[in-house]
Amino acid sequence: MKQEIPYKIYLEEQEMPKQWYNVRADMKKKPSPLLNPATLNPITLKELSGIFCEELARQELDDSTPYFDIPDEIRDFYRMYRPSPLVRAYCLEKKLDTPAHIYYKFEGNNTSGSHKLNSAIAQAYYAKKQGLKGVTTETGAGQWGTALSMACSYFDLDCQVYMVKCSYEQKPFRREVMRTYGAKVTPSPSMHTEVGRQINAEFPGTTGSLGCAISEAVEAAMTQEGYRYVLGSVLSQVLLHQSIIGLETKTALEKYGIKADMIIGCAGGGSNLGGLISPFAGDMLRGKADYEIIAVEPASCPSLTRGVYAYDFCDTGKVCPLSKMYTLGSSFIPSANHAGGLRYHGMSATVSELYDQGLLTARSVEQTEVFKAAETFARVEGILPAPESSHAIKVAIDEAVKCKETGEVKNIVFGLTGTGYFDMMAYQKYNDGQMSDYVPSDEELKTAFAKLPRTKE
Amino acid sequence: MKQEIPYKIYLEEQEMPKQWYNVRADMKKKPSPLLNPATLNPITLKELSGIFCEELARQELDDSTPYFDIPDEIRDFYRMYRPSPLVRAYCLEKKLDTPAHIYYKFEGNNTSGSHKLNSAIAQAYYAKKQGLKGVTTETGAGQWGTALSMACSYFDLDCQVYMVKCSYEQKPFRREVMRTYGAKVTPSPSMHTEVGRQINAEFPGTTGSLGCAISEAVEAAMTQEGYRYVLGSVLSQVLLHQSIIGLETKTALEKYGIKADMIIGCAGGGSNLGGLISPFAGDMLRGKADYEIIAVEPASCPSLTRGVYAYDFCDTGKVCPLSKMYTLGSSFIPSANHAGGLRYHGMSATVSELYDQGLLTARSVEQTEVFKAAETFARVEGILPAPESSHAIKVAIDEAVKCKETGEVKNIVFGLTGTGYFDMMAYQKYNDGQMSDYVPSDEELKTAFAKLPRTKE
Repeated sequence: MKQEIPYKIYLEEQEMPKQWYNVRADMKKKPSPLLNPATLNPITLKELSGIFCEELARQELDDSTPYFDIPDEIRDFYRMYRPSPLVRAYCLEKKLDTPAHIYYKFEGNNTSGSHKLNSAIAQAYYAKKQGLKGVTTETGAGQWGTALSMACSYFDLDCQVYMVKCSYEQKPFRREVMRTYGAKVTPSPSMHTEVGRQINAEFPGTTGSLGCAISEAVEAAMTQEGYRYVLGSVLSQVLLHQSIIGLETKTALEKYGIKADMIIGCAGGGSNLGGLISPFAGDMLRGKADYEIIAVEPASCPSLTRGVYAYDFCDTGKVCPLSKMYTLGSSFIPSANHAGGLRYHGMSATVSELYDQGLLTARSVEQTEVFKAAETFARVEGILPAPESSHAIKVAIDEAVKCKETGEVKNIVFGLTGTGYFDMMAYQKYNDGQMSDYVPSDEELKTAFAKLPRTKE
Repeated sequence: MKQEIPYKIYLEEQEMPKQWYNVRADMKKKPSPLLNPATLNPITLKELSGIFCEELARQELDDSTPYFDIPDEIRDFYRMYRPSPLVRAYCLEKKLDTPAHIYYKFEGNNTSGSHKLNSAIAQAYYAKKQGLKGVTTETGAGQWGTALSMACSYFDLDCQVYMVKCSYEQKPFRREVMRTYGAKVTPSPSMHTEVGRQINAEFPGTTGSLGCAISEAVEAAMTQEGYRYVLGSVLSQVLLHQSIIGLETKTALEKYGIKADMIIGCAGGGSNLGGLISPFAGDMLRGKADYEIIAVEPASCPSLTRGVYAYDFCDTGKVCPLSKMYTLGSSFIPSANHAGGLRYHGMSATVSELYDQGLLTARSVEQTEVFKAAETFARVEGILPAPESSHAIKVAIDEAVKCKETGEVKNIVFGLTGTGYFDMMAYQKYNDGQMSDYVPSDEELKTAFAKLPRTKE
């Protein structure tokens, strides 16, 4: 195998992006504004700054500035694990016997094991700069909590993590990574907060959801002096920070004169997908290029493919601002049989709006076929992928196989968000042939939709 | 922080070594030959080829050829995860406030989580080339077994792993990684082999040792048609393959005009240490340069610092060839409280001979202080290190702190062999303040020494 394109394209440090890209600035029709849950009016900077750090609240509300400088302190931290490689999947191509060229942007080469660190370090930086004592957050699969605990440890901030109970139990080792970085980890719903006690009373024995954990973390932030809440997905500020994934990918492709035909990302709350596609969607919005962008979500939590586009609460406890998004309803709790992340009921407002405008399509896939794709990928590419990332692998493989049938030489780029080293219980289920699939019934979704809030829009 | 030397030095693919380096070729006094356990005479190629693949047996016995071409198929595989970065530990330097420059060669960015993959893929390749059905092996902490299962999966070979029982129980998720790559994993000592049954009868309830597991794997290889045994450490062939670590390190340092003053590696069987130091020791043997080389071993299994230099069995069952090495005696079984790898009773013959000739020094460290160093490193450098690798971190930190006291600007290079993602039970013990240390008594060692075999030398 001799080729001009290396197995791994690493940018030089000086080629790393110096600014994040805010795709909203190039959208003619903007994502709808966040609403204050008390008044249902668009939330103000002052109101939002009670929950988030001020600079992050500012980034959240700014839909017109296209580029934000990345502070030097954050760029220094990025240099510890970035630039991440854009990998040409030569071995997978060979295994599939496809004419397609497959590339993946691998974000798992850091201890948090995923792309989450890109935003965690930014949020910790702004919290520190504001003179806060600490931050609170929720975590599902544990990747965001791990990332945030690493970031807080770096800036010497207190870090309090509410971890979705089923993940807390399925992934005990994640908790220890967080503790090694000095974080305090509480299974959610807990009895530490008012909202946690309410949820436990209403749904005894619940295994929790991201929505519940968010409510607890927000309450914890608002009831402690010198604390703010931070969130690892969904928000526009997170997509802004995660744009570094897409910017690096684009630079790496351009460096080797590669034109992507198709860009594929897994989608839970939309942080990875939004970050990966932002600069490419920006090209499309400016009429500079065209790409086929595909969001891949689990069939057990299908917000884009089966949700409605409406204002909804971001959390179960209804303490967060409302966001207009593709949603299954904040009362929807995905089946406990679903392995790992991508359990969120809604989708980032920006990704939702891009989807509504037709800039991307979406597919839902069942988890057994996702793990099959993960196994195939692991065995030839040498990386054991996270279940979340494997949703993107599944569709990338499907598309590469289609290319074999049609003979098309497409350039397929997908986001490999992380590694599955802390997901071995799910792999064990798959290895033992005991993994099952779950697709919510129409009735189940209808019940959740009926509880959506009524807003002016 | 502005500097010319990047955080991570990545070689280009074309700068990757095309040959492995065999340090024995440059040694005037060679390591003593392996002995046939039945005759106590130097083992022949024909005899050794009954245990190992023929090409690997040839590499094992060749102490005069300085360079071996790396076959293209292996180089293709290397390109999936190599070159590994040489990282400048800017953040650690800042934390320690030391004038020293600290570099680490990071081998953990692959799913096996360690450097073991470098030799696993070579051994699987030669097994495949010889037309074998499969290979058997032992694994301690599970890194070698994981690496071998990845390599066998790539070349479609059957892979049977005997895993030291205490690791099998402490690290259940490693087993699932191996299974995901299609390997069969058996806790050792097992009841599947004659030697396993004997060891279980003699030491009921034993948590096993590498020595036991080796004996079982060798027996399994010799009693199945089309199988050979492979070993992840100790052997000269393994050091040959692992020389890629040192060769890349040397190239990266030279590329930036850096002269290493001190090279530090953790030492269990010697695979990482031997690979890392080979080209540097070669320079010293040829009188071209001088380095301070330090091997770091656990105080609970101190073969270099408290062992004797003598012929010994490589395994508990005494089925393997005998090797002259620094050893605690093949009957020595490290305390079960010792976390993870570096549990081997002896040291690579090559490293032992280099040590005996004074080319390197050795230090032993206790595990609580090792985990403290690991925590410090993780929090500032963002990588959660393997307990094994953390032995090297501990001494690198000690040396950097000495530089602070003396004002010396030393270039300290150490090997960061892997990540600790599958060692969270050990980290949990440390996080809970429940980690303890164990140092074998003189009496304990004396008992083990008394059982050393009597050879002519």
